[in-house]
Order: sequence, then C-alpha cells, then structure tokens
Amino acid sequence: MKLSKRLAAELFGTFWLVLGGCGGAVLAANFAGPVHGLGIGFVGVSLAFGLTVLTMAYTIGHISGCHLNPAVSVGLTVAGRFPARDLVPYIVAQVIGAVLGALVLSLIASGKPGFDLVASGFASNGYGERSPSHYSLAAGFICELVMTGFFLLVILGATDKRAPAGFAPIAIGLCLTLIHLISIPVTNTSVNPARSTGPALFVGSAALDQLWMFWVAPIIGAVIAGVLYPLLAESPRADSKELALD
Amino acid sequence: MKLSKRLAAELFGTFWLVLGGCGGAVLAANFAGPVHGLGIGFVGVSLAFGLTVLTMAYTIGHISGCHLNPAVSVGLTVAGRFPARDLVPYIVAQVIGAVLGALVLSLIASGKPGFDLVASGFASNGYGERSPSHYSLAAGFICELVMTGFFLLVILGATDKRAPAGFAPIAIGLCLTLIHLISIPVTNTSVNPARSTGPALFVGSAALDQLWMFWVAPIIGAVIAGVLYPLLAESPRADSKELALD
Amino acid sequence: MKLSKRLAAELFGTFWLVLGGCGGAVLAANFAGPVHGLGIGFVGVSLAFGLTVLTMAYTIGHISGCHLNPAVSVGLTVAGRFPARDLVPYIVAQVIGAVLGALVLSLIASGKPGFDLVASGFASNGYGERSPSHYSLAAGFICELVMTGFFLLVILGATDKRAPAGFAPIAIGLCLTLIHLISIPVTNTSVNPARSTGPALFVGSAALDQLWMFWVAPIIGAVIAGVLYPLLAESPRADSKELALD
Amino acid sequence: MKLSKRLAAELFGTFWLVLGGCGGAVLAANFAGPVHGLGIGFVGVSLAFGLTVLTMAYTIGHISGCHLNPAVSVGLTVAGRFPARDLVPYIVAQVIGAVLGALVLSLIASGKPGFDLVASGFASNGYGERSPSHYSLAAGFICELVMTGFFLLVILGATDKRAPAGFAPIAIGLCLTLIHLISIPVTNTSVNPARSTGPALFVGSAALDQLWMFWVAPIIGAVIAGVLYPLLAESPRADSKELALD
Repeated sequence: MKLSKRLAAELFGTFWLVLGGCGGAVLAANFAGPVHGLGIGFVGVSLAFGLTVLTMAYTIGHISGCHLNPAVSVGLTVAGRFPARDLVPYIVAQVIGAVLGALVLSLIASGKPGFDLVASGFASNGYGERSPSHYSLAAGFICELVMTGFFLLVILGATDKRAPAGFAPIAIGLCLTLIHLISIPVTNTSVNPARSTGPALFVGSAALDQLWMFWVAPIIGAVIAGVLYPLLAESPRADSKELALD
Repeated sequence: MKLSKRLAAELFGTFWLVLGGCGGAVLAANFAGPVHGLGIGFVGVSLAFGLTVLTMAYTIGHISGCHLNPAVSVGLTVAGRFPARDLVPYIVAQVIGAVLGALVLSLIASGKPGFDLVASGFASNGYGERSPSHYSLAAGFICELVMTGFFLLVILGATDKRAPAGFAPIAIGLCLTLIHLISIPVTNTSVNPARSTGPALFVGSAALDQLWMFWVAPIIGAVIAGVLYPLLAESPRADSKELALD
Repeated sequence: MKLSKRLAAELFGTFWLVLGGCGGAVLAANFAGPVHGLGIGFVGVSLAFGLTVLTMAYTIGHISGCHLNPAVSVGLTVAGRFPARDLVPYIVAQVIGAVLGALVLSLIASGKPGFDLVASGFASNGYGERSPSHYSLAAGFICELVMTGFFLLVILGATDKRAPAGFAPIAIGLCLTLIHLISIPVTNTSVNPARSTGPALFVGSAALDQLWMFWVAPIIGAVIAGVLYPLLAESPRADSKELALD
Repeated sequence: MKLSKRLAAELFGTFWLVLGGCGGAVLAANFAGPVHGLGIGFVGVSLAFGLTVLTMAYTIGHISGCHLNPAVSVGLTVAGRFPARDLVPYIVAQVIGAVLGALVLSLIASGKPGFDLVASGFASNGYGERSPSHYSLAAGFICELVMTGFFLLVILGATDKRAPAGFAPIAIGLCLTLIHLISIPVTNTSVNPARSTGPALFVGSAALDQLWMFWVAPIIGAVIAGVLYPLLAESPRADSKELALD
C-alpha cells in the first residue's frame, strides 16, 4: 500500500476518533432532560472513544494499521513493528486529522443556542484546576503514563501472531473504553497526543499551557511498553505479525 | 437467492431496526421509578439501535446483505458493491418495514395509560425546535451527512475482503451505537431515511415537514463515502468481497 | 452426547440465566447510594440477562445447544432443528433450573436487612397493574409475542450454516440484551416461560395468576418464527447447521 | 514458554485487573458533576473489571494462560488443565501484581484534594457492615461461592476444544462483567482472592479481618466447578485444549 493512502487513512481515522470521542463528551454527556440520567455520562463517552478505534480498526486496519495516535506509532516503532522512516509522516497525518475532527465538532456544537466553546472545555485534557476532579499534575502524569503503557501492551499482545486472528480490534478498542472508564476524572483521559492537540487548539491558552504533558507522559509510557513486551513475550521481531504496511 | 426472499429479509430487518431502536427510545428511555437513572437513557437507546443491526446482520446477512437503510443501499451502489437494478426495490422494502415497525410500536406504546403519541415525539427526528437540544438545521445537516459518511466507510471497510471475516456485523452494529452516542441530542439521530420515515408518518405534519433533511443529508454522506473508500483502499470493484446477492 | 448430560447442562444454564438476570434486577438495579445513578438500572439488567446467555452459549453450546428456554426449544423443533422426542425433557430441565436459580437468589437476597421478597416483585413478569409502567394485557401480549419471534429468527439465522461460525453466542446473547432494553417497562421482559416460572413460584398468587401469558405469548411467537425462517432463508432442514446433540 | 516469563505475565495482568477494576470504582464511580449520572456507577465498574480480563486474555493468553486469579489457577488444576507444580508460583505472582496495582492506584487517587483512602473503602471487599448494602456473611459467602463456581464453568467451557476458537476472552471477560452487575451490592464482588488482598492491605484491619472469606468462598466454588465440568462435558483430560504453558 502506498504511503499516501496510508497517511490518508490515518488522517480519516484520527478525525473519527476526535469527532466521535470528543463529540460524545461535548454533545451528549451532560444532556439535561425531563428525568436525570438521560445523557451518556462517562460510560457513554468511554464507549464512544473505544468504538471509534474498534470501528476504524476493522475499516482501515488493512490499509494503514490504524494507529490514530502518535504514542502508538512510537511504541510500535520501539517494539520493531513499524518502520522508523514512516514515524514522522504518520504523526503529522494524525495531528491534522485530529485538528480537522475538532473543527467539524466545533461547527456542529456551535449550532446549539448558547454554546460557549471555551467555557465548555471542549473535551480538552488537563491537570490540577483543569482536571475534572482536580487531580494533581503528578497524579495525572502517572495515570497517563501507566494507561498508555498498558494500552501499548494490549496492542502488541493482541496483534502478536500467537494471539487469535481477527480479534485485535475488539481488544484494542475496548481497552481504550476501559482506560476512559478509569481515568476521565483524572485528566479527562488522553493517552493520545493527537487527540489532546485537536481540542486544545480551539480552547486556547489554558489548554495549550498544559498540552506538553499529554505528549510527554503517553510517549514515555509507550516507549516503556515497546521495550517490555518483546522481553515478556520472547518474541523476536521476525516472530511478530506485521501490520499491513507495504 | 431470489429477489423476493431478499426483499422480505430487508423488510423484516428494517421492521426490527425501527421497533427495537425507536422502541427503546419510546418505551424505556425516560422510565421514572423509585430512584433516578433506572430508564435506559441515551446509552441504552444507542445500544438498542446498534444491536438491531448487529443481530440482523448475523441473521439475514447471508440472505440480503442486511442493508436496512436506503442510504446504505445507495452508498454500496456508488461503491460498486450492489447492483443498481435492485436499488429501488430494496428502498421500497426498507420503507415498508420501517412503517410496519412503527405501527407495531404504536400498538404496544398505546397500551400505557395516558400515552400521547404526538406529544411524545415517537422517536421522530428533527432539527431546530424539534432537535432534543435545539440544534440548528445547519448543525443537524452537517452532523447527519458526516455520520452517515463514516457509517458507510465502516461498512465498506469492514466488508472488504482484506478485513477479517465474520466481524463486520460487530463493527457495523457498534458503529451505529457510536453514532447515536454522539448525535442523539443533535437530531435524535437518523443516518437512515427509512428509520426517519416510519415514525414521522405517525407523528404527522411537524415531523413530516422536516423529513426531507433525513433523506437528503444521509444520502449525500453515503454517496461521498461510496466514492471515497475505493480511492482510499485501492480496491477495484473486483477486489471487493461481494455480499450474498444471487 | 448422552441425554442426561445435555439435560444437566440445560439445568445449570437456566439456573445461571435466572440467578444472573433476575439477580441483577433484584440485587443491583435500584441501589441507592451517596449519589444518584450508582445502581445498574435497566441497562445493567439488560446486559446481565444477555450475558448469561452469551457466557453459557460458549460454555455448554457444544453440550446441549444451550436453549435455556422452552420457547427456544419449541421454535427449534418447529424449524426442524431439534428432535421432538427431546422437547419435554428439555423443558422440564429448564424449569427445574429456573426454580433452583430463583431459590439461590432468594437465599442471597434475604441476607439484606429488611428485604421483602413479595413486595420487591422478585423480578417476576406481569401486565396491567403488575407491569412496571402499567401496560395493558394486550400490549404485553403483542410485545412478548413479537420479541420472542425475533429472538427465534436471530437464533435460527445466526446458527444457519451460511452465517459466520462462532459468532452465534454474541448475536443471540446481545439480542436478549436488546429485547430487555426495549421491553422491561412493558412486562419486565420474559420471552422465556422458564424464566417467568422461577420467580413467580416464590412471589405467589399475584404473579402466578398472570403466568399463563408468559407461556402462551412467547411460544406462539417462537412457532411463527420457526415456520417463517426456513421460508425466508430457502433453507431446507438438511441445509441447516445441526446443533451438537448426539 | 519459561516459567519466569509466565509469572511476569501473571504479575502484569493482575496488576492491570486491580488498577483497572478497582481504579474504575475508586476514581470514577461516584463522580459528582453538574448533572446526576455522570459517574460510571456499578455498570461502569462491572465493565471495567470485565474489560481488564478481556484485554489481558488477548495480550498474555498465549504467554501464561491469563489466570490473574488464585481461584482460577486452583480450579484449572482440579480440572486437570494446569500442572499442580506451578500453582504456588502463579498465586504468588498474582498477589504481588495485585498489591502493586493497589499501590499505583493509591498514588493516583491521593492526587485528588481531600482523598481519604480508608474512609473511601478503596474498593475493598466486605460483608455485614462492610457490604455496600449490608448483606450478611452467609449471603456473601453463598454469593462468592456460586459466582466463582460459574466463572470457572465458563472458563472451562469456553476453552474446551469443542468451543469455537478465539472467543474465550470475550466469554470470560464478559462473565466477570456479569458477575459484577449482579453482586457489587452484596460483597463489592471479589471472586478473586488476589484482587481482594491488594486493596485490603492498604485499608488495614477492617478489611483484613474479613479477608479470609474472599479466599475461602471463591476457592471452594472453583474446586466444585473444577470437579463438575469434566463430568458434565464428558471431557477426559486429554480431550481438553491445553492453555499455552510450555
């Protein structure tokens, strides 16, 4: 598959991740209706993020490998599953997709009377005063690092050639759901620098000032997992299933 | 498989989509009990719509391909996966199934003391004052177009012969769940002109006046996806897995 | 597989369906805690019923076919998928399992201070004044008949030899979840005469007086589906995948 | 696969089970926001526990068999699926993983202003006054024993060589979700002595005084299931699919 097609797939996929996951949070989480509990809450937002990945993995997994996340691309590179020469183009495509996803979400969201994008938070990530439950920077950093590390372990394990074929999108998508179930109150859950960057550009300085953390912590977690899984699994590079790349 | 069998399967399947999805919304979403939060809310309605498609895709996928949706049939035709000569019969069967599903739902729903079909909205779709959160026509139009476009991308990708076999119903059904998690507050979520038509006929003029939008926007989204996927995936028509049609 | 083993499997499986599904409803649906919405509500009860079937279908599907439901056994017999000579023994085993499941549930539930089994309803099914939202007998009858009919269509379609292998437990289990998402407010959802009989014996006359409906309506629905599916699918008996029975 | 790799996998997996499952409960279940019902509640906690097992089973199933639970290791040994010589090392690795998972959770949780680990309960298990709904010791004991017994039946059935390949992680993970949907109000749900031990060590004497029950009841249930399944399934040891162990 040509690089240009793979980059287009990553762009569309990350667009869908941000529009769908952040869209669930912005448009539907807090719905106030005639009875309590109509809105989708954190369970619904967790499902939405996970299902963007599950659906895209079956849709473009055979085109680009469906990373949709700079930390995933870095972790796969460290583990020897992704060629380093494609890393920067993939990350650029993912960030562009995320920004465009946030753009379309802002167009839809602003169609509601009285919508205030900055005041709403627009599903941006944060720590301290910008954490949903005011968790500290240290707690948020540990949380993002550990969650992304396990996300990469699941990606590496579920796509190992010894794992049952075809199920990886379910394991990986529902792992992202699980991570959100745990950590939305801590940082609003990133584990994905592109997903953090999209909304932050629209919210402005308050979110941008904290954006560094959502690049650094997930990538450190991904690097650790990329080193760890091959040791744990006794899987030399040649043993691993290659994602569809050429 | 004979066309008459395939049309009967589409009719039954779309009946189930409307009875199940709209039924969850009308009968169970707002349940008021001894504690808050007993009703199924938007998470439950989202699961209900998605599971009608997941269950039917395993039930009649081998009979009719399980479109259940005029926009899906149009998008598959544009992508070269469905013969144009069957398009109109499929759409007619889907609309009849949707109307009959809404009819049976009205029979059940009216068994509750005090049920007022028109005042309830009967799970009809709408924009502006008829949107659950009063989203504008423009926001609703963009949302329906983009959501249907991605729905078709997922359908085309997950049934591509390079995707793992057997998992498409899970990807497609849960994609419809995802779409509802995002967009119920915007338009009550259509992405399916037949699903919109069934309840609208029972609600009457208020819903019928807005029905055009739920035919136009989803079909435009589906056409765009039907053009886009083959370009993205480098999949000529002959490369694609054919759905069971003859 | 010997009949005695298959009957034991049906007994254990139906025990699990009643303990798990009704257990979710009795023990966890209405939990009142420090904040609203902690209890599992109707979404959780719907998941619980569906997951009892999904888990048992992977556990005993290869032993007994995992019917767990007299209406399912009747429908499969009508469709030519199950030998009529085994119908009565299967139904007896299912009812015994359901009663024992309700017995163990009553032991656990009565360990909560102040638990009143009869006043709680004990997850029994009902119509009219005993319907959660006071739906009429006619509405309940139509609902149970149609829901069970589609449940059987899904069972017959997903186990058709032309459907992808291995996925039937997911389709069938999640179909039961879907049916509960729609119809708990109407009848508390039966679609299974054994599931209705277990709790009714503990609740006593109020539930027993209405029990006939939860045998008649589901079985009529199952018979209709058992006739309809082979017509719809052009599948003669010999074309169908046989469940593991001898 | 070397024992040291398998033990490392069990340690990481049980770490994830406790961090993810108890993390959902401690960090996200009770979230109080601008509207009711934002927090994940018992449905979300049930999903979180189940998804830790589903994700890990696809990640390390091919390394260690993914037990993550002393009761599971005992039950598999009784059923002849796991070598007795590896039982104690597995249990030690599981308990260490659980304690480390609770440790990292305590680091994250204490980053929230005003967090009081002991007063929160820290997702520890309990009966009587320490049961969420004050269920008695007898009710809790029966519940833990029966739930663990069925958990082992599902594990043994879904990994039987006659069950469809590749689906066991879905059946087993969602069985743990189901068990939590039923029994969180009773004991906060253990069915796993390692999962109970991790948080109890941080909560101190109140939880430690009741910890014996969450070792005894699950293990009795697992032993019964380990004896029962081979009888039910007519599966001699050699008939069973071996988990990846050497």
